[in-house]
Amino acid sequence: MGRKKVDIKKLLQSMTLKEKIGQLVQLAPFLFKDSAKGIVTGPMEWLGIKDSDVWNAGSVLGTAGAEETIEIQKMYLERNQKKIPLMFMADIIHGYRTIFPIPLALGCTWDEKLVEKAARVSAIEASAGGVHVTFSPMVDLVRDPRWGRVMESTGEDPYLNSVMARAFVRGYQGDDISKEGNIASCVKHFAAYGAVEGGREYNTVDISERMLREFYLPAYKAAIDEGCKMVMTSFNTVNSIPSSGNKWLLRGILRGEWGFDGVTISDWGAIKELIPHGVAEDEKEAAEKAIKAGADIDMMTGCYAKNLEKLVKEGKVDEKLIDEAVYRILKLKEELGLFENPFKGADKEKEKQIVLCDEHRRIAREVAAASVVLLKNQDVLPFDKNIRKLAIIGPYSDEHAILGPWSWQGKWEESVSLKEGIANKIGESKVLVAKGCEIEGESDSQFKKSLRQALKAANEADIIVLALGEHYDMSGEARSRAFITLPGRQEELAREIIKLGKPTVVVLFNGRPLEIRELYNIAPAILEAWFPGTEGGNAIADILFGDKNPSAKLTMSFPYTVGQIPVYYNHFNTGRPKPSEDSTERFCSHYIDIPNAPLLPFGFGLSYTEFKYSKVKLDKKVLTQDSVIKASVKVKNVGRYPGDEIVQLYIRDMVASVVRPVKELKGFKKIHLEVGEEKEVVFEIREEMLRFHNENMEYVSEKGKFQLMIGPNSKDVQTVEFELR
Amino acid sequence: MGRKKVDIKKLLQSMTLKEKIGQLVQLAPFLFKDSAKGIVTGPMEWLGIKDSDVWNAGSVLGTAGAEETIEIQKMYLERNQKKIPLMFMADIIHGYRTIFPIPLALGCTWDEKLVEKAARVSAIEASAGGVHVTFSPMVDLVRDPRWGRVMESTGEDPYLNSVMARAFVRGYQGDDISKEGNIASCVKHFAAYGAVEGGREYNTVDISERMLREFYLPAYKAAIDEGCKMVMTSFNTVNSIPSSGNKWLLRGILRGEWGFDGVTISDWGAIKELIPHGVAEDEKEAAEKAIKAGADIDMMTGCYAKNLEKLVKEGKVDEKLIDEAVYRILKLKEELGLFENPFKGADKEKEKQIVLCDEHRRIAREVAAASVVLLKNQDVLPFDKNIRKLAIIGPYSDEHAILGPWSWQGKWEESVSLKEGIANKIGESKVLVAKGCEIEGESDSQFKKSLRQALKAANEADIIVLALGEHYDMSGEARSRAFITLPGRQEELAREIIKLGKPTVVVLFNGRPLEIRELYNIAPAILEAWFPGTEGGNAIADILFGDKNPSAKLTMSFPYTVGQIPVYYNHFNTGRPKPSEDSTERFCSHYIDIPNAPLLPFGFGLSYTEFKYSKVKLDKKVLTQDSVIKASVKVKNVGRYPGDEIVQLYIRDMVASVVRPVKELKGFKKIHLEVGEEKEVVFEIREEMLRFHNENMEYVSEKGKFQLMIGPNSKDVQTVEFELR
Repeated sequence: MGRKKVDIKKLLQSMTLKEKIGQLVQLAPFLFKDSAKGIVTGPMEWLGIKDSDVWNAGSVLGTAGAEETIEIQKMYLERNQKKIPLMFMADIIHGYRTIFPIPLALGCTWDEKLVEKAARVSAIEASAGGVHVTFSPMVDLVRDPRWGRVMESTGEDPYLNSVMARAFVRGYQGDDISKEGNIASCVKHFAAYGAVEGGREYNTVDISERMLREFYLPAYKAAIDEGCKMVMTSFNTVNSIPSSGNKWLLRGILRGEWGFDGVTISDWGAIKELIPHGVAEDEKEAAEKAIKAGADIDMMTGCYAKNLEKLVKEGKVDEKLIDEAVYRILKLKEELGLFENPFKGADKEKEKQIVLCDEHRRIAREVAAASVVLLKNQDVLPFDKNIRKLAIIGPYSDEHAILGPWSWQGKWEESVSLKEGIANKIGESKVLVAKGCEIEGESDSQFKKSLRQALKAANEADIIVLALGEHYDMSGEARSRAFITLPGRQEELAREIIKLGKPTVVVLFNGRPLEIRELYNIAPAILEAWFPGTEGGNAIADILFGDKNPSAKLTMSFPYTVGQIPVYYNHFNTGRPKPSEDSTERFCSHYIDIPNAPLLPFGFGLSYTEFKYSKVKLDKKVLTQDSVIKASVKVKNVGRYPGDEIVQLYIRDMVASVVRPVKELKGFKKIHLEVGEEKEVVFEIREEMLRFHNENMEYVSEKGKFQLMIGPNSKDVQTVEFELR
Repeated sequence: MGRKKVDIKKLLQSMTLKEKIGQLVQLAPFLFKDSAKGIVTGPMEWLGIKDSDVWNAGSVLGTAGAEETIEIQKMYLERNQKKIPLMFMADIIHGYRTIFPIPLALGCTWDEKLVEKAARVSAIEASAGGVHVTFSPMVDLVRDPRWGRVMESTGEDPYLNSVMARAFVRGYQGDDISKEGNIASCVKHFAAYGAVEGGREYNTVDISERMLREFYLPAYKAAIDEGCKMVMTSFNTVNSIPSSGNKWLLRGILRGEWGFDGVTISDWGAIKELIPHGVAEDEKEAAEKAIKAGADIDMMTGCYAKNLEKLVKEGKVDEKLIDEAVYRILKLKEELGLFENPFKGADKEKEKQIVLCDEHRRIAREVAAASVVLLKNQDVLPFDKNIRKLAIIGPYSDEHAILGPWSWQGKWEESVSLKEGIANKIGESKVLVAKGCEIEGESDSQFKKSLRQALKAANEADIIVLALGEHYDMSGEARSRAFITLPGRQEELAREIIKLGKPTVVVLFNGRPLEIRELYNIAPAILEAWFPGTEGGNAIADILFGDKNPSAKLTMSFPYTVGQIPVYYNHFNTGRPKPSEDSTERFCSHYIDIPNAPLLPFGFGLSYTEFKYSKVKLDKKVLTQDSVIKASVKVKNVGRYPGDEIVQLYIRDMVASVVRPVKELKGFKKIHLEVGEEKEVVFEIREEMLRFHNENMEYVSEKGKFQLMIGPNSKDVQTVEFELR
């Protein structure tokens, strides 16, 4: 590169304690603007910070756009003593202006190249808007669809989440974060935020250390192993200590065991939240606990700004801790090339050209189509384009609010609605639209009227698309639901329409696995579209009319009912496993009123074509420390459409010093098969893949029998055995 | 006593290895009977044991009755080489033949004397039936009403469960277990069985060590501190290792930390279940892991009988481990006085006189009335006996199956149905009965017909009792429910009857907290009767007509809906607590569709009278290591009926090294108040009450601020502050 190097150590030495502490403070953009205008705002008062704190602050969060970022950076550099550029961080979660499907949908692609591409586009657009760091990927393992933030995760599996974590990081950071178009990645939320009790936002997390290490930690570690520059702490407690004040987690595991030398940051206000958590009496103690635990940047509280200086002077906090944190932050700024060009990337003209350009829209459409999961299809799909009339019925018929939560730079009016997507495909004149009902909250009389119109449209049409779902603001942060059914009268609407007996597909727009047991029984076809992003309508139309063959697979189980939660594929066997779903055995692990199995299992998704799996073969039956077993299966497209299949590999450790899951995803391959084509898929099994945390919490493999399973989803697998010697 | 002492050590020395191993084996009674007849039965084949194993077995489970126990003991002593008497163990859970309310109801009495009395009666009856040991109390802390065995627990609080654990043990064991009428107590299920995931029976338990120690372990320890002679291991895993093979749990905590020197026993078949759990390859490895972990008695598997001898001979198991276990078992037999009289207690004539005698029925009625919780009362109760007509409507109107699960020696025909109880009170002629509907499973036309009859009866009556509930076989072992609503058409029936607008009380018969949100809104009055046992109908009638004033309080929260589970009062505050139930704050820990609070909180229960609490006073505000704070409150009966009130004390540690619950029950007092009477209730606060497991897992108190709360339930409390210095 030949970039101008800054001597960070020298810079650090030249800084006053107050200046150093400033680097550990992150503020919202309005504080800079207000301060520049000489206004002391309520939030500033609330934070208890002064003007000087603002012009010492090391980073900004939640702003973007070349104009604004350049303006703030300029103001700042005029006032900051040492002229250390601000770092701009923001939540670029599934796209900047070109919005991709929500991460839960991205996971369903099982396609790390596509996910990397989406992250790449996001980075290019965000960089042009002056963003340096994105608070992404969120890699929290999730098992509870009540939690609103499952939409932000790639699902319930540590391996798949790890693969996706790496893909996001590669996509954002590229090969060198100093380059324009590349931004630093901040993985979150460390750790185990996805395990909030009862799926209730911000609630307690209580899991054993082994569960933490086996299931929850791997994806964070994967992101870090991929070079992810930052880590965000979580709101929750781990082991009864809030993450942002959890030394064992931050200094012990993250820095100690994993050797992470990047920057850590608290989530919004989380350091001050040590007080309501009950582990700090006041902001000063909160600051002390957080800096000692290893939280470098204090996001949006006054804890560090107001107290660290005092704490150092009183000898309660070693200045070395502050120096180390500041060094990491300055180093990241240097790596980002900000000392060379504080306005790096930000360019109003370029921004205009790049964001939402045709190429980005094209990629968004490709990704969205690859994330739509076909849940059921009784010979209804794909539709023939040469139909007479198609009726789109339901609150999502012509809805533009399909970007999903965390798409703040995206604009609804730039998204393609389902109706528009279908009209683009078959022409406006063939399309009838009737809302049928609101998402929720209408009166009986309103519903009767809407239903009548919907039935009229349905009766006129040859085929029907029922566009149903959750409101966009029913998932995401602080959007936990205790009832995870389709809201309002939508199921009622669906029943009435499906009763007509016409070829009908339900298209679902939602941010979490829903309880759709009854709908699943009666609907001839169901497409899970999630919140598909800017190109949603076009992508779904591609699927509906067979221009794309659905290939996505669920990465989170759909529960039979909310009373079955948590339900996930990689559970333990228990001492009294249910012999089979139809077993009448009394004294086995079961509910008396529902099956043990979810409605739809992890890894499940249909295609328009049919894939036939040959018998699974192993090249040998015994694995040793240095050898490799090759497991192979031939997959043939025996249906009528070309298509992609995601071939999944699971392994089960039959006997160990601690109980082990009934299966764990250990590999997968997405293959394309033309009609009649057959391909051999080969997985290599190595000893490392069999490691786990044994009774002494050592990460090792244990000799003995293993089952190897291959199949199109976590349920329908072929099983063979091998041995580790 | 002057009892004949047996030299156990000498006896032990005289035994062959095979004989010793026999003592570690517990079998079902039919195996003895079959073997005596020379029949090799299926179960024997399945266990893989021989005749000689049967006549070496140390104990029997699940039989009772003087005739049978005497018969088996005789047979046995004729064949057992060393003439070591068998020990008879059985599940006497809430009564032997006189059945008391289920333990969840017993807990609601908050009355250790009554619980002790119930256990005492149980022991007296069981002893006359030849039982030596009861597998009770079950003290598993429970937070998930989906789990069927919550009926067997006293609820969600470690302190209350501990008090009740002690009461049970005292009641069973009396002052000396060698006496007739006293039986040994076996506390279960060690440990944390109540935390099964998703409330699904036998499912995985995963909790942190601190949660285990703070919430789940105290009640087991309390039973042991009270002198409980035995401990049963649980089916579940703790820390990914099944309890029956969990050395850390059994040798580390139970024997090591707590110094327990009694007998441990696996739950039914649990040692063999190490195989499906996946920590043992075969029965031999299961036996090895279990004996090494510290499970003394193998209940109903062949693991020990078939393998221990080999394991000792191969040097894999030290014979010392077996000697120690056998010594503990022989010592218990000696303590029980069995060497002196192997037929101890068992007496056919006495049994006839004692079981279900008037005195026992009287106590059962007293206890049942004290366990009925008044959940709602809009001036409906108590009823006037001088009414014209009363209609009892619902499937529990004249039902005798109200004993509840785990009442195998109880007989339905000996129980008093609600109709009988009411008729006993006001005379048969005033009572109309209509079933209204089945508990579940009827057709539409059947329901219509039943409903018509019910409406007819309701229309003829002045007052109505709606007797609804779960089927007796919907709770208890292996009876987990994913839907915890009233089954079948019962809510529909209730709606139709309540619509009539007559004075109506709903009486609920059930084994778990139910989802009764809608019923709670519309019913004028609700009595939670649980499964009240033999004298249920009389006891409920006592309450309905005001001969008893309800005083019971819930010991397990009633969730607003199943999607709110787990919901319990002693939760953590989180970093973003909801400011109040009606707060519209977005970024706080909540669900968007339901409240955070349960429908009915822990400690809640109404009375016919009204109690007024004065201001809570502390005699000092600072507590030190050696001092005591006296917290006092005056409670006055300002209503129209004499009554009992349960005054509850809660404490909150405001700041600590780890997060602490928002409140914890630390004391309670049940007081009786005549109309107009006032009493002062005083609680003594000592430093020991403030201890918890700190960040280093040391059990200590930490200086600082505390809140002390006193009130009639966990929600409506007065709060004052004190400091620990």
